[in-house]
Amino acid sequence: MNPDRAVLLVHGTDRPGIVAGVSSILLDFRANILSLDQYSTDADGGTFYQRTVADIADLRAERPRLETALEKKLGGELGMTWTLTPTSERKRLAIFASKSDHCLLELLWRHRRGELDVDIAMVISNHSDLAADARQFGIPFFHVPVMGDKTAAEAEHLRLLQGNADLIVLARYMQIVSDDFLHALGIPVINIHHSFLPAFIGAGPYLRAKERGVKLIGATAHYVTKDLDEGPIIEQDVVRVTHADSAPDLARHGANVERQVLARAVQWHCEDRVVRDGNTTVVFR
Amino acid sequence: MNPDRAVLLVHGTDRPGIVAGVSSILLDFRANILSLDQYSTDADGGTFYQRTVADIADLRAERPRLETALEKKLGGELGMTWTLTPTSERKRLAIFASKSDHCLLELLWRHRRGELDVDIAMVISNHSDLAADARQFGIPFFHVPVMGDKTAAEAEHLRLLQGNADLIVLARYMQIVSDDFLHALGIPVINIHHSFLPAFIGAGPYLRAKERGVKLIGATAHYVTKDLDEGPIIEQDVVRVTHADSAPDLARHGANVERQVLARAVQWHCEDRVVRDGNTTVVFR
Amino acid sequence: MNPDRAVLLVHGTDRPGIVAGVSSILLDFRANILSLDQYSTDADGGTFYQRTVADIADLRAERPRLETALEKKLGGELGMTWTLTPTSERKRLAIFASKSDHCLLELLWRHRRGELDVDIAMVISNHSDLAADARQFGIPFFHVPVMGDKTAAEAEHLRLLQGNADLIVLARYMQIVSDDFLHALGIPVINIHHSFLPAFIGAGPYLRAKERGVKLIGATAHYVTKDLDEGPIIEQDVVRVTHADSAPDLARHGANVERQVLARAVQWHCEDRVVRDGNTTVVFR
Amino acid sequence: MNPDRAVLLVHGTDRPGIVAGVSSILLDFRANILSLDQYSTDADGGTFYQRTVADIADLRAERPRLETALEKKLGGELGMTWTLTPTSERKRLAIFASKSDHCLLELLWRHRRGELDVDIAMVISNHSDLAADARQFGIPFFHVPVMGDKTAAEAEHLRLLQGNADLIVLARYMQIVSDDFLHALGIPVINIHHSFLPAFIGAGPYLRAKERGVKLIGATAHYVTKDLDEGPIIEQDVVRVTHADSAPDLARHGANVERQVLARAVQWHCEDRVVRDGNTTVVFR
Repeated sequence: MNPDRAVLLVHGTDRPGIVAGVSSILLDFRANILSLDQYSTDADGGTFYQRTVADIADLRAERPRLETALEKKLGGELGMTWTLTPTSERKRLAIFASKSDHCLLELLWRHRRGELDVDIAMVISNHSDLAADARQFGIPFFHVPVMGDKTAAEAEHLRLLQGNADLIVLARYMQIVSDDFLHALGIPVINIHHSFLPAFIGAGPYLRAKERGVKLIGATAHYVTKDLDEGPIIEQDVVRVTHADSAPDLARHGANVERQVLARAVQWHCEDRVVRDGNTTVVFR
Repeated sequence: MNPDRAVLLVHGTDRPGIVAGVSSILLDFRANILSLDQYSTDADGGTFYQRTVADIADLRAERPRLETALEKKLGGELGMTWTLTPTSERKRLAIFASKSDHCLLELLWRHRRGELDVDIAMVISNHSDLAADARQFGIPFFHVPVMGDKTAAEAEHLRLLQGNADLIVLARYMQIVSDDFLHALGIPVINIHHSFLPAFIGAGPYLRAKERGVKLIGATAHYVTKDLDEGPIIEQDVVRVTHADSAPDLARHGANVERQVLARAVQWHCEDRVVRDGNTTVVFR
Repeated sequence: MNPDRAVLLVHGTDRPGIVAGVSSILLDFRANILSLDQYSTDADGGTFYQRTVADIADLRAERPRLETALEKKLGGELGMTWTLTPTSERKRLAIFASKSDHCLLELLWRHRRGELDVDIAMVISNHSDLAADARQFGIPFFHVPVMGDKTAAEAEHLRLLQGNADLIVLARYMQIVSDDFLHALGIPVINIHHSFLPAFIGAGPYLRAKERGVKLIGATAHYVTKDLDEGPIIEQDVVRVTHADSAPDLARHGANVERQVLARAVQWHCEDRVVRDGNTTVVFR
Repeated sequence: MNPDRAVLLVHGTDRPGIVAGVSSILLDFRANILSLDQYSTDADGGTFYQRTVADIADLRAERPRLETALEKKLGGELGMTWTLTPTSERKRLAIFASKSDHCLLELLWRHRRGELDVDIAMVISNHSDLAADARQFGIPFFHVPVMGDKTAAEAEHLRLLQGNADLIVLARYMQIVSDDFLHALGIPVINIHHSFLPAFIGAGPYLRAKERGVKLIGATAHYVTKDLDEGPIIEQDVVRVTHADSAPDLARHGANVERQVLARAVQWHCEDRVVRDGNTTVVFR
């Protein structure tokens, strides 16, 4: 863990001088740029996106001065939105699960292997089935039943999450979260949908995939917005199936895709590789 | 080209004795079974599908007697639908194209290489752009403009096709064919749709894919039915794209998938590997 | 679990009448054939392979009589090798692991989910790191250190395995097993190699892949023979990498491929879908 | 075609200030940066690679002054290697082919579609089979037979190529080119090898793939160096095959991969996306 390493994300209306502005400030702070990816949506007047990873000498001490310089140039002169995130500041995840174990276990396992460089603050579930799994990996598990009206459950969720999480991951949580809840949370929520969106929006995608006779099935990780399955897509993948696969076979094959897709999306989000662009995403890989 | 080789397709309501019935008749005719694939949709009372490739001694002379035996057993006793197709009887294709060359050229090229073992009877187009390409490959080209009412064009199509084709391939023809036309044709029609169906049904799929921000784009080859883009799917595939790809980039990457998917679907159809199962397909590969 | 369901594998020198012979015997025993795949390596005098899944009325009671009939026809008249395996007779696996958890956990997890329909008899390791993981899944764990000469360890392995396993899976065991040991075992051994064989045979494939600058890395599951990494391949897959991936990144991406490839190979073996054909395999999917 | 657009490639020993140096010069020249990708092999003292696409106001007139400024900063102060290539300066390709048409046609076809933004100066072949194909696409075709000693043929090649080509593409040319020839040419040569290198180096890869029983076959596009099949890899891909595929089937499936892989590699090279890094490549996509 390099205490001097940080990720700088910049986006906003494209105009001349942004790359030069950023790089000259970084040079002033004796930063070593490790990678820089820049992308503009259009040659004329589009949106500008830049992700820079740099080692900045004595980052902890210099950070206030650096942020002042960045804000003056990027926020002030150039009108850009920017964030500077030291990679040593690990994001805190809260994972929501239900009864299916595959997405949850994939995240817990990658976390234990050191592949997912975050803190997993807690697992919240409307069922108790996965309590032992979470605890085996040393993660606190909270059982919050959801019955009828969700108000009580969402209040309990907020109580648990307040100040403890930077990202919510719905790991096949199978419950719709309310717009009020999203608003009250104020942090990003990533969901895994078990189809290749926008095909098979809504419930029962594997059964509908079987009925439609598709030859590939997929999974989609996306940010949750108030419109079900309509949020910005972060990652998708598919796997080949045949006529001989039953709907349960599709679900089984699909589970393998779901856990890979969700794990990649969460990892990219936590490495500050994903920027929302309206209802789409820019993913710097 | 082995004159004794044939493909036998059998399907119908599953019941005991079908495999034994077929194989004992083939044994009586001193057939050498090269491959046999059998699939039932359900352990109890589902639908039975079987594809058998066999070398049958002196097929040309024995065919009437063999067909009589098969009909007695399969059609009569077991109530199955069946077809016996000597592989030396090449299917006759008519390809409909418009202005895009990629799907047409892929088919013409594979045909010339000997990969697509069919006769290409003609290319029909509502534009004249691809006339030189078709003729370079030695294939007759007919320009049938379509204006306003399609009745006249479809009448001309029928006149050209009558008795000359066993399969129509819509190679990015971009025109909706009428239900009456399909009915009058009485032969299968395969279309390539430039999206991963059922996502992006209808017009402009690449633009809509760009707007939705999908991370994979695809193509779907399907039999044409009266409901647009709703027919049985034969083959699908996808390719990865990124935020940096514009809608024209998606179209360009997608074109590569379209031509591969269509070529595979046409090849499998012509090798008698595809059986319709309601609105889905069984594809024996 | 259907007690009447069985898988019949038949292979040997191709000759007329095998399919008919099998299917007429199955018909005599009032079997319902669920799927049948047959493949011959050559039109003339090649090798014949057939896999049949059937529900056989009262299998338990009828099995001796059925096996007598099959042996008379297949073993006697037609000179074929055959096995009949009720699907209710689950194979017993012994998994060898070392320090890496990913392949072991994938197998234990799929087993718990009911995807891998086998009994996992034990985990054997030359290190104790994975003891808690195995036990969390309720599987006995034996720590058998290997130092210098392997004779003592292999003797202990044989003692543990004798009569308790039908298949050995080397889940990144990282130790060469001796030819004598393979011979004494007398059961199949499946290994996962962390490269796309035959590229990067031997040690350190990810480092060598980095040095060679390949754009895809892969994994290979194969039966173990006395020649290292030369046994019959069951399954392979790859994942795309870039110049920006370090050798540890390749190992991390590769681990995901390894566990999927090994899990598929083990599953297919346990479903009697794999037949060895010299140094290659026929895999009925 | 934007006459002001250029690609700037910079590489060399990493040191502080390169990104800032480039971007401040570009800002001085009122350039609009469209995309910038930067990659360093190591945090400390590795190699630095940067690809920048920019629209530079009045590029044609300003180019000498811009190049002077870049050389002073990049070549002089920072010791970097750099190239500035206006995208309006299309690279001139010479394609070498033999009897196989698939790779040649893919390139000619993409060129005609406007996907491959280059000039194809000529096709050279040791056989005359593909003359009509090349000429149909309006490309000069030269038949240069190769018999026994290659000296005469290579002299004729050099005579044809001298001053007329920026890149040689061996589109299944199937002849080894001599080290002297490579040296005399002084321009890059891209070859397509019909296997997933480093597996199956040398002749007959599909037959050897069949014998080894691999489950995927691949193709590799690489720069040609004096060591056969050992040059820096630009792109690779694979396709799934089964036991039922004969060696000719593998060749047929592989041909589809070959042409896609070669076309991508040529396109990336011609878009100045590929930088050699010793015996590997950095590919900015």
